Amino acid sequence: MTLPDRVTIVEVGPRDGLQNETAVVSTPDKIAFVDRLTAAGHRQIEVSAFVSPKWVPQLSDADSVFAGIARSPGVRYSALVPNRAGLERALAASVDDIAIFAAASETFSRKNINQSIAQSLQTYGDVASEALRTSLRVRAYLSTSFGCPFEGEVDPERVIELCERLLDLGASEVAVSDTIGVAHPGQVGRLLERLLQRLPPSQVALHFHDTRGTALANVLIALQHGITTFDSSAGGLGGCPFAPGAAGNLATEDLLYLLDGLRIHTGVALPSVVAASRAIEHVVGHPLPSRYVQALPS
Amino acid sequence: MTLPDRVTIVEVGPRDGLQNETAVVSTPDKIAFVDRLTAAGHRQIEVSAFVSPKWVPQLSDADSVFAGIARSPGVRYSALVPNRAGLERALAASVDDIAIFAAASETFSRKNINQSIAQSLQTYGDVASEALRTSLRVRAYLSTSFGCPFEGEVDPERVIELCERLLDLGASEVAVSDTIGVAHPGQVGRLLERLLQRLPPSQVALHFHDTRGTALANVLIALQHGITTFDSSAGGLGGCPFAPGAAGNLATEDLLYLLDGLRIHTGVALPSVVAASRAIEHVVGHPLPSRYVQALPS
Repeated sequence: MTLPDRVTIVEVGPRDGLQNETAVVSTPDKIAFVDRLTAAGHRQIEVSAFVSPKWVPQLSDADSVFAGIARSPGVRYSALVPNRAGLERALAASVDDIAIFAAASETFSRKNINQSIAQSLQTYGDVASEALRTSLRVRAYLSTSFGCPFEGEVDPERVIELCERLLDLGASEVAVSDTIGVAHPGQVGRLLERLLQRLPPSQVALHFHDTRGTALANVLIALQHGITTFDSSAGGLGGCPFAPGAAGNLATEDLLYLLDGLRIHTGVALPSVVAASRAIEHVVGHPLPSRYVQALPS
Repeated sequence: MTLPDRVTIVEVGPRDGLQNETAVVSTPDKIAFVDRLTAAGHRQIEVSAFVSPKWVPQLSDADSVFAGIARSPGVRYSALVPNRAGLERALAASVDDIAIFAAASETFSRKNINQSIAQSLQTYGDVASEALRTSLRVRAYLSTSFGCPFEGEVDPERVIELCERLLDLGASEVAVSDTIGVAHPGQVGRLLERLLQRLPPSQVALHFHDTRGTALANVLIALQHGITTFDSSAGGLGGCPFAPGAAGNLATEDLLYLLDGLRIHTGVALPSVVAASRAIEHVVGHPLPSRYVQALPS
């Protein structure tokens, strides 16, 4: 069984995590959080989203957060961007990458972004062309790839086609996302076997939620299929407010405990991520779900 | 990657789970719990322990529980047995199998059973010979095989030697146990690579705790090494009172979610295990840690 030597972690805590917290987190606290994640050795940090404050009030200060963070050379700071207006703001904030977010389930797409999948791809195609013209890198999320809270099972062929469509639009990678945390290694393995007949592993990232305790097992089987990019959230911050019963993202600490144990290089220091999580835990006001962090002596 | 077609789950909730609950569970509630687990399709259930009530007051009614359960043909009902006195009680209760429990860490052995490892092996050798003479099957636990709360790391060579010793004493299998839930797939894979050079996979069971969220990933890598017996506890009941910070056993439901997804046959019906857990959850008076159960609509 060959495993990759190196893995890239895309730290999504400041965006995907904080977006799903009810606590109001101040701009300076967000900036300090991102700076701590930079200090931990992350090379890709999703900092915020340039979406309507009406949709996601938690991230309405995206411009100020980008203005305040201490950028480290070689680290890519990205933001979620839903449309041209968001792209303008992202460009003004000098983001390194943008992320677009489509869904594999029609119902979820309509409930999450109020557009059909086809409409969203049209919008994203426009955003992606413009972003590429200005030399930004584009990342795509494909949510509900393993199951939809409204439609249940999702056809793997549909997931694969949508991954191809998103890459055709100019995305450099697709984060195949288990929005509601139903994926298990059987499903992940079977999807990857088919997906990797059509796409190289370098264009596929995986984004798991640990709702049913399967996230690390899913990562393990994905590693065995040659996947080298995984999303995670410091402390396990966040989740999905549109997905009933969804617990938080896979915690960066839990992912690092697995990867460090497998002797896979990430460049990210586990104790420093814990320090970042502990600081934000005070701000959000409740214990974070990371299993690794919970097992530490308090 | 070849996976086994079938896996045996050793359900340890009634013993390892209830032993570590502070609530007083009545004998009829215990009997009902075991009967529900039988109905769920389990073939091996660790029902109780014939240990001194001074040590483990929670299981002092082992005799009455064995007398009360409805035994199903083909299901093996086992009990933990520390010494000859326990064996006498186990024989009187007509158990099918007994389990002996050694540790891979000297300090843990002394704190847990007040004997050195060598002393415990002598006692168990005596118990095992007598048990085999009366046609009981003997299972052995080797606790702290992946780490000790007092000594930290445990030498894999020591674990392997102790597995061999326990098999030499007459055990039919050794449950290599991660008492404090520190094991990760890197460690499990590396231990199994060495262990399986000396023992056949059929003599090795694995017993994980999900303290750091790695239990299912550990099971996955063990399956890939040909291991076909895993311990789990309905709802994730239990833990280890002698191990600081140890969370509960791997939950049977979480294990089944993984195995069912991998299309590995167990004969155990997930919804029926959930029903057993829900019933005992009311009795112990707190939510059970199973991630799968927690994700179900309440």
